[in-house]
Amino acid sequence: MIKYKIVILSGKGGVGKSTVSANLAVGLSKKGYKVGLLDSDIHGPSIPKILGIEDIKPEPTTSGIKPVLIDSKLKVMSIAFLLKDKDSPIIWRGPLKMSAIKQFLGDVKWGNLDFLIVDLPPGTGDEPLSIAQLISDSSGAIIVTTPQDVALLSVRKSINFVKKMNISIIGIIENMSGFKCPHCNKSINIFKTGGGLKMSKDFSIPFLGKIPLDTIIVESGDSGEKFLITNEKSKPSKAFMKIIENIEKNLKLEENVKTKAL
Amino acid sequence: MIKYKIVILSGKGGVGKSTVSANLAVGLSKKGYKVGLLDSDIHGPSIPKILGIEDIKPEPTTSGIKPVLIDSKLKVMSIAFLLKDKDSPIIWRGPLKMSAIKQFLGDVKWGNLDFLIVDLPPGTGDEPLSIAQLISDSSGAIIVTTPQDVALLSVRKSINFVKKMNISIIGIIENMSGFKCPHCNKSINIFKTGGGLKMSKDFSIPFLGKIPLDTIIVESGDSGEKFLITNEKSKPSKAFMKIIENIEKNLKLEENVKTKAL
Repeated sequence: MIKYKIVILSGKGGVGKSTVSANLAVGLSKKGYKVGLLDSDIHGPSIPKILGIEDIKPEPTTSGIKPVLIDSKLKVMSIAFLLKDKDSPIIWRGPLKMSAIKQFLGDVKWGNLDFLIVDLPPGTGDEPLSIAQLISDSSGAIIVTTPQDVALLSVRKSINFVKKMNISIIGIIENMSGFKCPHCNKSINIFKTGGGLKMSKDFSIPFLGKIPLDTIIVESGDSGEKFLITNEKSKPSKAFMKIIENIEKNLKLEENVKTKAL
Repeated sequence: MIKYKIVILSGKGGVGKSTVSANLAVGLSKKGYKVGLLDSDIHGPSIPKILGIEDIKPEPTTSGIKPVLIDSKLKVMSIAFLLKDKDSPIIWRGPLKMSAIKQFLGDVKWGNLDFLIVDLPPGTGDEPLSIAQLISDSSGAIIVTTPQDVALLSVRKSINFVKKMNISIIGIIENMSGFKCPHCNKSINIFKTGGGLKMSKDFSIPFLGKIPLDTIIVESGDSGEKFLITNEKSKPSKAFMKIIENIEKNLKLEENVKTKAL
């Protein structure tokens, strides 16, 4: 049984959708939830790299594929695990691609989960469309954006895309939002800030929070370190945990949280 | 007649492929070449936004579609011009998508060009594959990457993808490479630096140059300003012009350049 299935999407690649997916999964498991993380980006699966489990192969069993256990609370499955050579491009044409995704989704044996976080491929094309349709009982979608106008342009498309798919939107996350120089501590607006918040107001969609641009996120994404655990007092860690609280609120999980805290 | 067709690709979105495409086109036209810029990213066409021509519609004629004239040396065509509502996602399924792209490519009346710069959709999927195949007489591909490992992972796929398509690789451009704090002028490695250069050595592919992460690029991308012209002494402008020189070298255009300079 999976209680909540959340799809994470973005209208455009490179906004940090996989990084956000991975850290939401880590953060939710850190709070005690049983979490599954599904990397469904068949052209650029980066979850195993981000979580430092690139060289692990999940074991096929007679009843399906067992996801990789990160710890007792977090399981991960990625299409990357099924590829022999990580440098090979997957040139899968439409029909084959869809049936592969369908089989992939059906074969993974998650067991009981509180949350399944699904990292969708970027964009508003065939793949996110088909996967969103395959995950028919999803609890909702989270849209990831960066603050600059060019990124927001494609987020607008995502919002309409999700609406057309009849999935509810849990909220928007603004990633790479603001930056402080680590030397002089002054603010630098590399990708600006506030665009995601503005967009959430324009479309009357909940705003889940901002994640600052921070070298700790880039470095840990490359090294496979889970900074929410190893560096839980950092600004990005606090930002992620705040966002997770907002997700709990929007899903009306406050009661569960209180029960757990007692 | 089109002398050189160059496809610009990246294994992953968000690395600045469209920004690089637009500025290569502006830079080549600034040097006196007749340039066409084709935005073929049907899910996230951002060239019109980057060049500040969002509200312009190209005129259909009896013989085909005339590209939009930026100035006497630069013409632009984007799938975005054909969309009625810029907020709508294009949910085109495989077969329809391909025939639309084919018609789109065939209908544009470029006239005589020295360069056609083609901004491909990101990734190694159906779209870049089909478009690369439709542009059969292309002079080669330029791969855009950012320096961090996670981005480089998908660039490896792009390199293999291009090789399989039998297109030659003109070179690699490393974007968002290094950053200097505008307040204290100290270097900050937000997305690291040097990864693209390393990758070009690993695969014995020419390295065309690095473009620094700079707020001027983000701001001009949002405002539609052409900073290569309005701010030609900036570091990003110099980086782009240096890259263009390397492209000319790799295409053995030195003779032409010398003739023009006389």
